[in-house]
Amino acid sequence: MMNFDYHNPTHIVFGRERLHELDRLIPENAKVLVLFGGGSVRRNGTLEKVLAGLGKRDVIEFGGIEPNPRFNTLMKAVDVVGKENIDFLLAVGGGSVMDGTKFIAAAAHYPGNPEDLLKHGFAPLPIESAVPLATVATLPATGSEMNMGAVISHKSGKLPVMSPLLYPQFSVLDPTLTFSLPPVQVANGVVDAFVHVLEQYVTYPVEAKVQDRMAEGILKTLIECGPVTLAEPENYDARANLMWSATSALNGYIGVGVPQDWSTHMIGHELTDLFGMDHAQSLAIVQPSLWKIRKDKKRGKLLQYAERVWDILEGTDDERIDQAISMTRSFFESLGVKTRLSQYRIEQADIAKVINALENHGMTALSETGDMDLAISNQILQDAYA
Amino acid sequence: MMNFDYHNPTHIVFGRERLHELDRLIPENAKVLVLFGGGSVRRNGTLEKVLAGLGKRDVIEFGGIEPNPRFNTLMKAVDVVGKENIDFLLAVGGGSVMDGTKFIAAAAHYPGNPEDLLKHGFAPLPIESAVPLATVATLPATGSEMNMGAVISHKSGKLPVMSPLLYPQFSVLDPTLTFSLPPVQVANGVVDAFVHVLEQYVTYPVEAKVQDRMAEGILKTLIECGPVTLAEPENYDARANLMWSATSALNGYIGVGVPQDWSTHMIGHELTDLFGMDHAQSLAIVQPSLWKIRKDKKRGKLLQYAERVWDILEGTDDERIDQAISMTRSFFESLGVKTRLSQYRIEQADIAKVINALENHGMTALSETGDMDLAISNQILQDAYA
Repeated sequence: MMNFDYHNPTHIVFGRERLHELDRLIPENAKVLVLFGGGSVRRNGTLEKVLAGLGKRDVIEFGGIEPNPRFNTLMKAVDVVGKENIDFLLAVGGGSVMDGTKFIAAAAHYPGNPEDLLKHGFAPLPIESAVPLATVATLPATGSEMNMGAVISHKSGKLPVMSPLLYPQFSVLDPTLTFSLPPVQVANGVVDAFVHVLEQYVTYPVEAKVQDRMAEGILKTLIECGPVTLAEPENYDARANLMWSATSALNGYIGVGVPQDWSTHMIGHELTDLFGMDHAQSLAIVQPSLWKIRKDKKRGKLLQYAERVWDILEGTDDERIDQAISMTRSFFESLGVKTRLSQYRIEQADIAKVINALENHGMTALSETGDMDLAISNQILQDAYA
Repeated sequence: MMNFDYHNPTHIVFGRERLHELDRLIPENAKVLVLFGGGSVRRNGTLEKVLAGLGKRDVIEFGGIEPNPRFNTLMKAVDVVGKENIDFLLAVGGGSVMDGTKFIAAAAHYPGNPEDLLKHGFAPLPIESAVPLATVATLPATGSEMNMGAVISHKSGKLPVMSPLLYPQFSVLDPTLTFSLPPVQVANGVVDAFVHVLEQYVTYPVEAKVQDRMAEGILKTLIECGPVTLAEPENYDARANLMWSATSALNGYIGVGVPQDWSTHMIGHELTDLFGMDHAQSLAIVQPSLWKIRKDKKRGKLLQYAERVWDILEGTDDERIDQAISMTRSFFESLGVKTRLSQYRIEQADIAKVINALENHGMTALSETGDMDLAISNQILQDAYA
C-alpha cells in the first residue's frame, strides 16, 4: 500500500424527505445563490422544495448552467455573487451544476484573472478562500457532491479544477429526486460511476486489500442496481444503491494508497469536446479498447477484476481477461450506451483530431505510470472505432 | 436503505515515516499535552519520534493511561490541562489512550461536574467545545482514531461518550509503529475490528448493497491479513491492511443506512469489568453464542455472511449458518483468542453476576431491534460457558 492522506469534510444528508433540513444546514443570515441547469429541477418540483427549505432567506436563482459547464457561463454567476453580496452557493443538479458551482465559489473570491484558475491541472488551486457551497444532488454519476474537484470547459478544452476549499459543506442525496431522470441520464450515470472505480482499481497491484474489496463491491452493486433502476424507475432501493455507489466511487475513499490511471477520462474529455458526445458515452468507448491494448500492463488487476467482479474462473489468463473486457462492453451496451466511435457518426479519419487535441493539451504521458504516449492513444482509438 | 447522515472530518495521515509531519499538522504556538499508556511508546522509540516531530513547541507528557481507561486517572490529566493552559491533546497509543484523551478533551472544557459526562450513553454529549485533539495510533483495533466515540470505565461500569467535537483533527497511522506489538495485542485487534464490522453487518437486510459489500471486504481482509501479521510481524503490507481495516471498520462508513446491534459489545463490557478479561476476548466469547441463540432473528444476514465471507455454499440453511458460526469461532481461536467463558477461570455461577450487572446498567433491551432481554443474554452466556 502506498502512503496516503485522506480528509473529506463533506456532510452527507442521505434519504427521503431531507430537503426541509436545508433550513438547519445553511446559516440563518446567509444570502443564497441557488444554481441549476436547464430547468428540469423547476419542472419536476425539486426547485420548489429547495426554496421552501431555504425558508425566509434572501435567495437569488441562477439557471442555465449547461452540461460540461463553460467558463463564460459561470463567469456570469461570478458577477452575480459579487454584485449581490452572495455568501452561500447551493448547487441543485448533477455533476455539471455541482462542478460549475465549485468554480464559481473559487473564482468569486479570487483576486487575479479567473482564467488562471484553469491552468493548474490536478494540483490544488492557489486560493486562500472560496464562497461556502453545498449541493442538492439530483443525478447519481460524478461524485462531485463529495469531492473537491470539478471539470470546466473553456475554449477547446475540459480543464480540471481542484481545491480542498471546494468540498461541499454538505450534500443532500435524496434518491426520490432522481425518479424522474430520463433513462439516458441514468445509464450515463451508471457508466460514469463504473469507470470512476475502474480508473482507481484496474492499474497494478499494491496489496491494498481493503480498497480493492471496496472497489469491487461498488462495481458489483452497479452491475446489480443499474439495470433494475432502468427497469423500475421508482424502485427506491435501486436508486439509493446507485446514488451511494456513485458517491462512494469518487469521494476518495477507494482511491487512497493505490495508483490511479484516469487516461480513459483524459481521452474521453477530448471526444466530448470535439464531437459533443456525453461524458459517459466517451468513457464507454475508450475503456474496453484501452484494456485490450494495455492488457499486459494491467494484467494482474484485470485478472482480479475478471475473477472477483464477473466470477470468471475458467480459461487461460488471456481468455479470462478478454471475457472480462467483453462483459464490461456488454454491460455498458445493455444499459443503452454504445461503445464504438463509429456508432456516433464519427469518421475514422477524425481520430487524428483527437490525437492532435491530446497533444495540444499536454496529454502525452498518460496512465498510472505516465508511459502512455500519443501512439498508444491512437492505437486505442483505432481499436475503439468499430 | 435507511436514511442517514455521514460526516467524518478526521484527516488520516497514513504510511511510513509520517511522524515528522506533526510539525505541520499542529498549530505552531500550541502547548501540547502528549498522552500515552504504560510506557511501551517510550521503550520502543515512538515517543521520541513524536517529541522530535513536535519541534520547539512547549510539550508536557502524561503517561499511565490504563487499558479500559478510568475516570479517576483521566481527571488527573484534566487537572494538568487546566493548570498548564494546554491547548492541544496528542494521544499516542491504542484505543484506551485515544478514548481517554477524548474524555479529557471534553471534560477540560466542561463547566459542570465531569462525572455527568458519563450519563449520556450513545447520545451526543451536551458540550459546546472540547480541547482540539489528534492521535498517533499504535494499535490497529478500535477505530477510535477516526470516530467520535470513547468508552470510559468508572466505578462498576464501562460507559460510552460521544460527541462530534471529539473527532480527532488528524490521526497518524504508521504501520511500522505497530511492528513491535505483542502478538496477543495483534490478535485482540483483529478480533475487535472483526466484531465491529459484525455488529453493523449481521443484523437484518435493508438492501444496503454498498455497505454490505464493504463490510464483507473488511472481514475478508482481516481473515487474510490477521494470521500473516502474527506469522510475519514486520510484513508491512499485512500491517497496513490490518490497520486500514480496523479504521474502516469503525469510522462510520460501513454503518450508514443500516441497523446496528452492539449487544455483543454491551455484554462483553460487563465481562471485562467483572473479570478483567481483554475487550476482544470478551467479544470472542459472546459473538458465536449470540448467533447460535439468535439464529432465527439474524437468519438472512447470517446466510449472506456464510456465503460471501466464508464461501459456504453447500448444505441446508441451518447447516450453512452453523458452519459460519463454527468458522468464526475457529478463526478467533486460530489467532490465539479463546472463545469459552470456562477458559478464563470463571465459574458458571458467575454468569448471574453478569446478568445482574446488565440489569444495573439498564442493558435489558439490547439488539438491533431492542428485543433482547436478560433471559436471552443469560441463554447466550450459558451457551458461551463451555
